[in-house]
Amino acid sequence: MKYSLFGESHGPAVGIVLEGVPAGLTLDMQAIQKQLDRRAPGRHPTATPRREADVPTILSGVFQGKTTGAPLCALISNSDQHSQDYEALRTLARPGHADYPAHVRYQGCNDYRGGGHFSGRLTAPLVFAGAVAKQILAQRGIFVAAHISAIYGISDQTAEDWDSLRQVADKPFPVLDDQAGEEMQAAILEAREEQDSVGGSIECAVFGLPAGVGGPDFGQNAEGIFSQYLFAVPAVKAVAFGAGVAFALMRGSEANDPLYMDDDGTVKGEQNCAGGINGGITNGMPLTFEVTMRPTPSIPRTQFTVDLEKGENAVLELTGRHDPCVVPRAVPVIEAAAALAACQLLGI
Amino acid sequence: MKYSLFGESHGPAVGIVLEGVPAGLTLDMQAIQKQLDRRAPGRHPTATPRREADVPTILSGVFQGKTTGAPLCALISNSDQHSQDYEALRTLARPGHADYPAHVRYQGCNDYRGGGHFSGRLTAPLVFAGAVAKQILAQRGIFVAAHISAIYGISDQTAEDWDSLRQVADKPFPVLDDQAGEEMQAAILEAREEQDSVGGSIECAVFGLPAGVGGPDFGQNAEGIFSQYLFAVPAVKAVAFGAGVAFALMRGSEANDPLYMDDDGTVKGEQNCAGGINGGITNGMPLTFEVTMRPTPSIPRTQFTVDLEKGENAVLELTGRHDPCVVPRAVPVIEAAAALAACQLLGI
Amino acid sequence: MKYSLFGESHGPAVGIVLEGVPAGLTLDMQAIQKQLDRRAPGRHPTATPRREADVPTILSGVFQGKTTGAPLCALISNSDQHSQDYEALRTLARPGHADYPAHVRYQGCNDYRGGGHFSGRLTAPLVFAGAVAKQILAQRGIFVAAHISAIYGISDQTAEDWDSLRQVADKPFPVLDDQAGEEMQAAILEAREEQDSVGGSIECAVFGLPAGVGGPDFGQNAEGIFSQYLFAVPAVKAVAFGAGVAFALMRGSEANDPLYMDDDGTVKGEQNCAGGINGGITNGMPLTFEVTMRPTPSIPRTQFTVDLEKGENAVLELTGRHDPCVVPRAVPVIEAAAALAACQLLGI
Amino acid sequence: MKYSLFGESHGPAVGIVLEGVPAGLTLDMQAIQKQLDRRAPGRHPTATPRREADVPTILSGVFQGKTTGAPLCALISNSDQHSQDYEALRTLARPGHADYPAHVRYQGCNDYRGGGHFSGRLTAPLVFAGAVAKQILAQRGIFVAAHISAIYGISDQTAEDWDSLRQVADKPFPVLDDQAGEEMQAAILEAREEQDSVGGSIECAVFGLPAGVGGPDFGQNAEGIFSQYLFAVPAVKAVAFGAGVAFALMRGSEANDPLYMDDDGTVKGEQNCAGGINGGITNGMPLTFEVTMRPTPSIPRTQFTVDLEKGENAVLELTGRHDPCVVPRAVPVIEAAAALAACQLLGI
Repeated sequence: MKYSLFGESHGPAVGIVLEGVPAGLTLDMQAIQKQLDRRAPGRHPTATPRREADVPTILSGVFQGKTTGAPLCALISNSDQHSQDYEALRTLARPGHADYPAHVRYQGCNDYRGGGHFSGRLTAPLVFAGAVAKQILAQRGIFVAAHISAIYGISDQTAEDWDSLRQVADKPFPVLDDQAGEEMQAAILEAREEQDSVGGSIECAVFGLPAGVGGPDFGQNAEGIFSQYLFAVPAVKAVAFGAGVAFALMRGSEANDPLYMDDDGTVKGEQNCAGGINGGITNGMPLTFEVTMRPTPSIPRTQFTVDLEKGENAVLELTGRHDPCVVPRAVPVIEAAAALAACQLLGI
Repeated sequence: MKYSLFGESHGPAVGIVLEGVPAGLTLDMQAIQKQLDRRAPGRHPTATPRREADVPTILSGVFQGKTTGAPLCALISNSDQHSQDYEALRTLARPGHADYPAHVRYQGCNDYRGGGHFSGRLTAPLVFAGAVAKQILAQRGIFVAAHISAIYGISDQTAEDWDSLRQVADKPFPVLDDQAGEEMQAAILEAREEQDSVGGSIECAVFGLPAGVGGPDFGQNAEGIFSQYLFAVPAVKAVAFGAGVAFALMRGSEANDPLYMDDDGTVKGEQNCAGGINGGITNGMPLTFEVTMRPTPSIPRTQFTVDLEKGENAVLELTGRHDPCVVPRAVPVIEAAAALAACQLLGI
Repeated sequence: MKYSLFGESHGPAVGIVLEGVPAGLTLDMQAIQKQLDRRAPGRHPTATPRREADVPTILSGVFQGKTTGAPLCALISNSDQHSQDYEALRTLARPGHADYPAHVRYQGCNDYRGGGHFSGRLTAPLVFAGAVAKQILAQRGIFVAAHISAIYGISDQTAEDWDSLRQVADKPFPVLDDQAGEEMQAAILEAREEQDSVGGSIECAVFGLPAGVGGPDFGQNAEGIFSQYLFAVPAVKAVAFGAGVAFALMRGSEANDPLYMDDDGTVKGEQNCAGGINGGITNGMPLTFEVTMRPTPSIPRTQFTVDLEKGENAVLELTGRHDPCVVPRAVPVIEAAAALAACQLLGI
Repeated sequence: MKYSLFGESHGPAVGIVLEGVPAGLTLDMQAIQKQLDRRAPGRHPTATPRREADVPTILSGVFQGKTTGAPLCALISNSDQHSQDYEALRTLARPGHADYPAHVRYQGCNDYRGGGHFSGRLTAPLVFAGAVAKQILAQRGIFVAAHISAIYGISDQTAEDWDSLRQVADKPFPVLDDQAGEEMQAAILEAREEQDSVGGSIECAVFGLPAGVGGPDFGQNAEGIFSQYLFAVPAVKAVAFGAGVAFALMRGSEANDPLYMDDDGTVKGEQNCAGGINGGITNGMPLTFEVTMRPTPSIPRTQFTVDLEKGENAVLELTGRHDPCVVPRAVPVIEAAAALAACQLLGI
């Protein structure tokens, strides 16, 4: 499967073409909608008040309720746009956003309204595709789940098993430890009150991947494949597998996962520092990783920047509606990216 | 340019085919050899005593001293192999290594001697390719440099500029702060004494990339391209751009890089938390990232594992020659991966 | 640029996502519509009477009249569908069509109405994309043009120059020699009268390509790149460059194109048997090729086939509206494929 | 599997890296050598007298007699080079060769001796890779075979079945009808006597491919995949599937292959005009195609050309050793390209 995302924040619609979907899949539209709703704006006090129904329209690739194997195109309409919020700022590069490099890259022709094609709104069709991928994986006994691992330094517990992570998908605020979740939400709301935003991280696991998938070389290795999908999600700035950055603090005797024969005849690790991957190949343990997401760059306070048309320093006062933290809504997006990556790894 | 690495630790040679090298480049073989020597084993008290000359033989793609534009194949011979070290362990999966997943992936047919194709020895031809890429980039005013940022919790200073990083390449132990370097070496030697190994991290910067290269979408974004090259380096388990994992502790007002017009008419950031990339596109600031490398899995102490042939638990006692820390020798490897990634980003 | 086609003959719409369109292009919608009209059904007595407006709706990638550099999605509605024509034949594999292999490939889930995603209708969005590509090429002084070279053994003249080929685009029946065109049309109408169809061929030329583009190796060579685009057009069964299949009848002394220095200081060939390509690289002469298209498989006469559900022999009586020859309407499609191939060859 | 060819006609060696070879294959070196010998020069009166042993050395990817799944690198030495033949002609572009476009493409730095990387000598490692691919296919009951279908207008019979084609591989001159073969050889020798060369064509079939492999879209369709491999073979200028260019002379009632249920429960065609492919997907009938190869451009007679250094017209008198017809030696090369294409189509 490969995907092409299209659309802009303030265009008529955003959408996706998904090539290579296996034929004969009965799409569970309810499950798809649930993932879209988890990502949708206006659903939670910590999120932007922009309201979008985010109901997908399938244009192709489904016939008589089943996937046909032909490219699947899904559209999601844009409705609640406040394009005028952006007119005044048209030539001012918002710090932390892609405005300046996009201006250079696209010779000033990119749609600047709401970030255009760079908008987090493009993650809606990505979640659609990920929900399709999750269904395909579920048929093979493979499950993807994620939770907020930290926001502004406040940490959730670590995920231990599929059952605990599965429950997170039903929570309005996707953490394992609700007490930590309360503190995170307080930190988000406090940041908003102070005209600011906060960053955080998401931990994700893929359960049920068979051992022996991937390879050591460029283009084959599991970490490389996953990272390419994950860095294509806006705001992701770091990807770490297994023990991740903590490996730099460890000794080999701690980092090596001792192996044993499980009762079911499979080889298991006594711990999973490797995050389910050795030498770029899955080892049958859960594939685990953590992504770090930068704080929302859009903050309603005075910022110093440049005017791209005049070529001179300028002062920016952002208005508009923004998430003070993108992490909570990004949880199903990271699941989507992981599900699509798992499909590629498996040759689906 | 794209590369294909081939060879095994205990085969006759390791090598690389590099397609798409621009024609007309006079290869600076001395600069190439310098990078290979920085990576070569047996050069430093903290490294494995295996001795290899690591002098490349060019089989194709160079004519009358210049690259021809045809695929460039370079071979590096293996000479100082102790294959018998591995015979006794043939069926025992070394924890932290790819032995078990490779056994599944390749149905037990992979070359197990010294890790075979999974060996860090494959990074020698990668460094060759990276040195070629560095030359190509240097012609465009682009420079890649790296240093050890931390080993076992002991941190080097942060790189501020190209000049300080350039000097690191001439040091036997590639750090900015030699005092920190002494402590790191002590930590490595102490780990070796205790039959153990340590992990660490490398910070790398690409200076001189123009603004406006890359794109937001899958397959185009700068972070995704770099991460694919970096995770193809053995032992890399995390990749973080700019402020990296620290973004999870930050507010937007700290993380946003304020912009200003520089005297030379270019747009600059007052700081560089973004690591030179916004929305997947370079912004003209140095592209910076940090990779985390796991501790060497090969440690000469008793480890618990499984016998892959007998399918039962087993105890492993590794002998052989190993680096107690791969990080110092990996510095030119990370530079190589970054240089190749920069070439892809630029469409070279 | 790369494209993803989606849609089915009897779905709500067909469309395309075109990634990598250069930013800043003012789309000439009239020129695009002209190409779509040349392909559209119901325009000519030799074509199917199905009527479609074939007016594209652009969903993304264009802002304030210019391309933004973001993926461009265009939709073309389906309106004049006679789906009931296909219900009776649902399980009968039409000879010459993909019904049987698609049934195997997609486990019987493909949309069988009007050929579904295999329909020639998918060439409408391809012509859209090709018209965009032609504009991009025209800015660089590169022009693509094609004509019917033969139908059912009746040959047109050979194209000699851009001016003669340019005029063909304005003719209702795209040939150089209108007398030959009359005979071809008579052959088509005669075939239709006899419940049959006819095949033919299209010659196409790309003028203005610079010398030195392409390469000898897999994935780079000009013939390989063009052929991949051309064989993606339904009904194309042969692709031949320059003298093409006549090379098998030639001697080297005839086939070699003698070279000379032109007055403008460029190297030219005294003839162009090579079709503008030597060793996979353009030589500055027009890139010329001919494609052969099979006769329309849909013919309204009794045919022997199998029932895919019952697994037994069956007799098929096709009704529905079909082109007795796809070649005339395919001329802008081949131009589109060639224009997209030329863009890939040039790295656009 | 994907391959990278490297080397030059007058360099130390030519070679290939083959990635993605399935693990556990015991290479039949005798079968590989047989294919290499069929291609090797100096074996037949109609071929160039250059003598090369063409015995491959495997550098990686094979351990204890079996493929390991790691990249397989094979080298074939160059020994019988007459480089001095080329010095005098260094700046004269040989008509019909890539000299001029390569000069532009590689800024005059390409290795001109014997055509350098453009040499037909590069087909030796390609035959090696194809022989490996043929073994992989044979394990799945898939066989590839080819014969000369025509030389200078003299035609062989058409291949009807696998058994007749299989015998061709054991003949010194690979045709079905030995009488036609005699005439072809006479035509080649006559051309040589007249300081000339001749072109021809090769017909190839892949037997045993399952129905339902491939797809209609760009990048998936069987014709597109095969054509990309075939056009990467030097001198191939046309590729035609099934009835090929004859489709332009046919009616639908002739071109459609009527279907029937075979006694073994599979769907078969009563004829195979489609060449085993409908809509880009295999239909279970033999996949058949014909390639046209241009006459050898190197002919030992006076030719008009340009001097690339002086930028003026020049006269060329070629010496050196050349095949008066490349078609006979190209038969195993086309088999190799087809075997590699079949592997890609099957996802191997």
